[in-house]
Amino acid sequence: MTNTLDSLDPSPLPTGLHADRAQETRWVVQAVKPVEYEVRMVAGLLDPASSDLATAGTTERTGDRRFVVVDAHVHELYGDRIRAYLDRHGLTGRLCVLPAGEEAKTMESVLRVVRGIDEFGISRRHDPVIAIGGGVLLDIVGFAASMYRRSTPYVRVPTTLIGLVDAGVGVKTGINFDAGKNRLGTYAAPAVSLLDRTFLTTLDRRHLSNGLAEILKIALVKDARLFALLESHAEELIETSFQGRFDQDPVATEVLERAIHGMLEELQPNLWESRLERLVDYGHTFSPTLEMDALPALLHGEAVNIDMALTTVIGRRRGLVTDAEQERALRVMRRLELPLSHPVCTGDRLERALADTVRHRDGLQRLPLPVGIGDACFANDVTARELHDAAMELADLEPTHAR
Amino acid sequence: MTNTLDSLDPSPLPTGLHADRAQETRWVVQAVKPVEYEVRMVAGLLDPASSDLATAGTTERTGDRRFVVVDAHVHELYGDRIRAYLDRHGLTGRLCVLPAGEEAKTMESVLRVVRGIDEFGISRRHDPVIAIGGGVLLDIVGFAASMYRRSTPYVRVPTTLIGLVDAGVGVKTGINFDAGKNRLGTYAAPAVSLLDRTFLTTLDRRHLSNGLAEILKIALVKDARLFALLESHAEELIETSFQGRFDQDPVATEVLERAIHGMLEELQPNLWESRLERLVDYGHTFSPTLEMDALPALLHGEAVNIDMALTTVIGRRRGLVTDAEQERALRVMRRLELPLSHPVCTGDRLERALADTVRHRDGLQRLPLPVGIGDACFANDVTARELHDAAMELADLEPTHAR
Ligand SMILES: NC(=O)c1ccc[n+]([C@@H]2O[C@H](COP(=O)([O-])OP(=O)(O)OC[C@H]3O[C@@H](n4cnc5c(N)ncnc54)[C@H](O)[C@@H]3O)[C@@H](O)[C@H]2O)c1
Ligand SMILES: NC(=O)c1ccc[n+]([C@@H]2O[C@H](COP(=O)([O-])OP(=O)(O)OC[C@H]3O[C@@H](n4cnc5c(N)ncnc54)[C@H](O)[C@@H]3O)[C@@H](O)[C@H]2O)c1
Repeated sequence: MTNTLDSLDPSPLPTGLHADRAQETRWVVQAVKPVEYEVRMVAGLLDPASSDLATAGTTERTGDRRFVVVDAHVHELYGDRIRAYLDRHGLTGRLCVLPAGEEAKTMESVLRVVRGIDEFGISRRHDPVIAIGGGVLLDIVGFAASMYRRSTPYVRVPTTLIGLVDAGVGVKTGINFDAGKNRLGTYAAPAVSLLDRTFLTTLDRRHLSNGLAEILKIALVKDARLFALLESHAEELIETSFQGRFDQDPVATEVLERAIHGMLEELQPNLWESRLERLVDYGHTFSPTLEMDALPALLHGEAVNIDMALTTVIGRRRGLVTDAEQERALRVMRRLELPLSHPVCTGDRLERALADTVRHRDGLQRLPLPVGIGDACFANDVTARELHDAAMELADLEPTHAR
Repeated sequence: MTNTLDSLDPSPLPTGLHADRAQETRWVVQAVKPVEYEVRMVAGLLDPASSDLATAGTTERTGDRRFVVVDAHVHELYGDRIRAYLDRHGLTGRLCVLPAGEEAKTMESVLRVVRGIDEFGISRRHDPVIAIGGGVLLDIVGFAASMYRRSTPYVRVPTTLIGLVDAGVGVKTGINFDAGKNRLGTYAAPAVSLLDRTFLTTLDRRHLSNGLAEILKIALVKDARLFALLESHAEELIETSFQGRFDQDPVATEVLERAIHGMLEELQPNLWESRLERLVDYGHTFSPTLEMDALPALLHGEAVNIDMALTTVIGRRRGLVTDAEQERALRVMRRLELPLSHPVCTGDRLERALADTVRHRDGLQRLPLPVGIGDACFANDVTARELHDAAMELADLEPTHAR
């Protein structure tokens, strides 16, 4: 993959300070903030021979101290190797262990990280905070780092599939607050994000499926080739946990690379979400409400998948997707072991979820709907009727769930 | 004042997504975030005839709801007028009242604002949050708004002199955490900052002096003319609380405008503090520690003034400031009713304060020192000896304080 996607702005953005005094004195302050970060696939990150983690996010003035945050499961599985790695590289590390899971995505967790950084003491510009874990942990630590002394560099090391293809590669951070999913957060790019797929070997099947939902999302809205790869290798991808270097395992590699590339293509020109029509919001219209209301029954990707199944059906009913295409899409979802529905997915709740999303999307639905397979459009006129009908149709397809 | 200070970047900044795959696949994400905000002097902001506040930060799609945060004192003094103003303009307002004072600058206060916004419900892009109060309140609300759904527009209405010339015009937000002054925060520009000096009529003398310390700061490091104005009108500025429109009260107006212009000139090219040599940090090297350790005895500007007195003495001992210039500077400080020292200002504490600031300034002192009056330089080699000597000299000048 050597394609380059430049979106250089044709004109330099305005910066400066302009003062004028007519009736009233006023000043206009204009400035631009440049942001740059790297997302890198690496192998053997915790192998003592690798220097990737030891040098990540460092400058010529970085010392030998590292504040490392991991979630409890990751710590159980990899804590010893992380310690050994730091030792081997002559680094004084402080491991801060946070409870795992969506319920831990709170301000308390953020403040625990902050207090830990404060007590350990780091050089704010040169000693990067390192986050090793799934999407929950990355969101918490990114948030903490972005507010600590108004921003401290941090490194993302995703250990789940959701982390590798989504939470680990963008700039969003956040926590839940009261009943609001990601109600609080910031946009804060990591110094670098290091993607080592070998972490997936310890991830359970369900969380692999969970991450595959985000990969399927990219496939459905913009990458027919990626969909074809999923279609021909669904079970194998889960069985093998995406292992092997690209020369040994070309499929897993291509799937990961296409998913990440597709994601970054969407994120980069819209890093601060000033544009609200976002293809990557596919599957994310109803799912935040479903996920929070079903907590902890539905994982993020599972809720996303239900949303995608629902909008696929809506698309078919609108003639955007053929019967055969719907059948292919839903079949892949099933083979990826993802749910098509859930008892919380009622017409009424979908209406409420849509209303909440409309508020979030500035008064319009901006609902990504699939067009065939590998393309999408945005709708603003989906009706309550359509939601109820599609929900019924899906519930019938998943007869184990009560309606 | 019609001067324009352009600092247009000569070259457009890089943006884009670059992918390459050699051994390992990597992507580089580059983007620039444009920021623009307005700082405006207004008169009669709460006068029902004025539309400034009703239209502040609005778009063509803004509704008639406003979430307004005020501190308890401001609420006591202006709550009725704020309500009447909103009523008169057909706005449904929710007033959120926070406790006043530096001790309230906590995460709890931030979360109170967040919960209030959440319960009230606003259209995230179009219904600005309005903050009316001193520096503490502005810092809290700016922080809350910047993290609410990863950023919500807000309007700053400073009601103290510190607010008018400093906290109200920049982009920094923050709260204290454990013993750390502004340990957590963000950079988040307001949609607009509305400066109405009539709020100062209810401010007590001590808080006027407090704000005059920040004005004096700008005068000492970069504006000899502003210093001369303070020198010839110190008492009058306090007595009259900066009242009158510029045609009636040219001195107060010129003082405010020069202070704000000088401040913005320093902030605009360095909005995110990537450069750590900041003239506006004059008086802010030792003062954070002094302020926090003396809490609540020293106000922000009082601590800043002690820092400025100290560095003026250090400057004189280094031959950067003449005896006569030191005498003039300290005399104006006294006439502005600002302390030159305080029992917490011991040599040992100054050493600790400097060490903390060095950590914050990336390993170097970068200590602004006055050069004559109206100019400054940066020093990296101030010794413990100099701190002790200067502290002793000042304590002798303020004999009421025990050493
Ligand atoms: N910031 C973003 O752009 C973004 C994007 C997508 C998702 N997210 C967020 O990410 C979260 C979901 O991420 P997730 O699915 O990674 O959840 P998660 O972080 O809760 O991880 C899932 C589970 O796997 C465990 N785990 C992590 N790595 C493991 C490993 N290598 N082996 C064994 N177990 C491991 C964790 O302890 C946890 O129990 C949601 O909160 C979602 O909002 C954020
Ligand atoms: N963000 C920034 O760039 C920045 C810059 C400078 C200072 N600050 C912060 O600002 C704070 C100091 O600001 P401050 O001095 O305004 O403190 P403050 O907000 O505590 O206000 C001082 C006192 O005056 C009261 N008050 C406010 N307006 C009043 C009015 N019109 N009439 C009567 N009483 C009124 C308040 O209730 C409070 O008791 C510090 O926390 C400092 O860190 C921030």
